[in-house]
Amino acid sequence: MENLFTDEYFMRIALNEAATAFERDEIPVGAIIVTNNKIIAKAHNLTETLTDVTAHAEMQAITSAANYLGGKYLQDCTLYVTLEPCVMCGGALYWSQISKVVYGASDPKRGFKAKIGELHPKTEIVSGVLEDECGLIMKEFFQRKR
Amino acid sequence: MENLFTDEYFMRIALNEAATAFERDEIPVGAIIVTNNKIIAKAHNLTETLTDVTAHAEMQAITSAANYLGGKYLQDCTLYVTLEPCVMCGGALYWSQISKVVYGASDPKRGFKAKIGELHPKTEIVSGVLEDECGLIMKEFFQRKR
Repeated sequence: MENLFTDEYFMRIALNEAATAFERDEIPVGAIIVTNNKIIAKAHNLTETLTDVTAHAEMQAITSAANYLGGKYLQDCTLYVTLEPCVMCGGALYWSQISKVVYGASDPKRGFKAKIGELHPKTEIVSGVLEDECGLIMKEFFQRKR
Repeated sequence: MENLFTDEYFMRIALNEAATAFERDEIPVGAIIVTNNKIIAKAHNLTETLTDVTAHAEMQAITSAANYLGGKYLQDCTLYVTLEPCVMCGGALYWSQISKVVYGASDPKRGFKAKIGELHPKTEIVSGVLEDECGLIMKEFFQRKR
C-alpha cells in the first residue's frame, strides 16, 4: 500500500494556507507543522493584517506548535512551508531545533540559504516540493500588484 | 545644557527590563524602542514563560512598537537592547527598516554580526553602550545556573 502522508500531501495543505493569504491580500506563503502525521499548527502570512513584520507564516506556526506541545523544542516535528524561509524565520527554526524543514519554492534574494546557509545541526532540510505551484502563487500575486 | 536623552540613558532602561527577566528566571535580555525620545515599547525575554523560542525581547518590542505606531515600518525609531541581537531578531529588524539599533554586550557566538553582518541599509548600528553592565548580568545569570 502506498503511503498517503508524503511530503507532497502535506505541502498541498500548506499551499491551501498560502491561498488563504492570497485571498486576504497577503503575500501568499503558508506553513504547517506536523508530528507523527498529525498537523499541530497551520498558519499563513499575516504581516499586513497585523501590521507586524514578524507575522510570517513560519513564526506563527512555530509559536502555535510549541503551544500545542507545551515545550519550546520541536522534536519529531516537520515544518512544511511554501517558500524558502527568510533569515528571521531561519533563525527562529534554529532556536526551535525542529527535526525537518520542507519548503517549496526557493527565494534566492531573501531566503536563509544565501545568508546563513544551514539551520540547526539537528534539522534535515528538503527543498523543491511542489516547487512550481508554490512559485506560481507568488508570481500571480506580484503580477496583480503591478 | 547637557542632553538627558543619551544612548546610555535609554540603555539603562533596557537594563531594567533585563533585570526583570533575571528575576523571572529568563535569560536576562531587555529591549526598548524609542521615537523622538519617547519610549513606545518595553520588553524582556520571555522564552521560558511563554515556552516559545520566538519570544525574544527584540521580537516583542518590534511587534509592540508597530502596534503603537499603526504601521509595520519603524521609521525614526531606535531599538536599545542589552545584548547583540541574534539572527532571528536581526532578520526581524531588517524587515522593520528600523532607523537605529543600539546594543550593549556583543554575542560573537549567536549574534547577527558574525552570521549576517549588516541589517537594513537604512539602519544605523551602535554597539558597546553600557557593555560591561549588559555583559555582567548575563554572566551572573549563567553562573547561577551552573
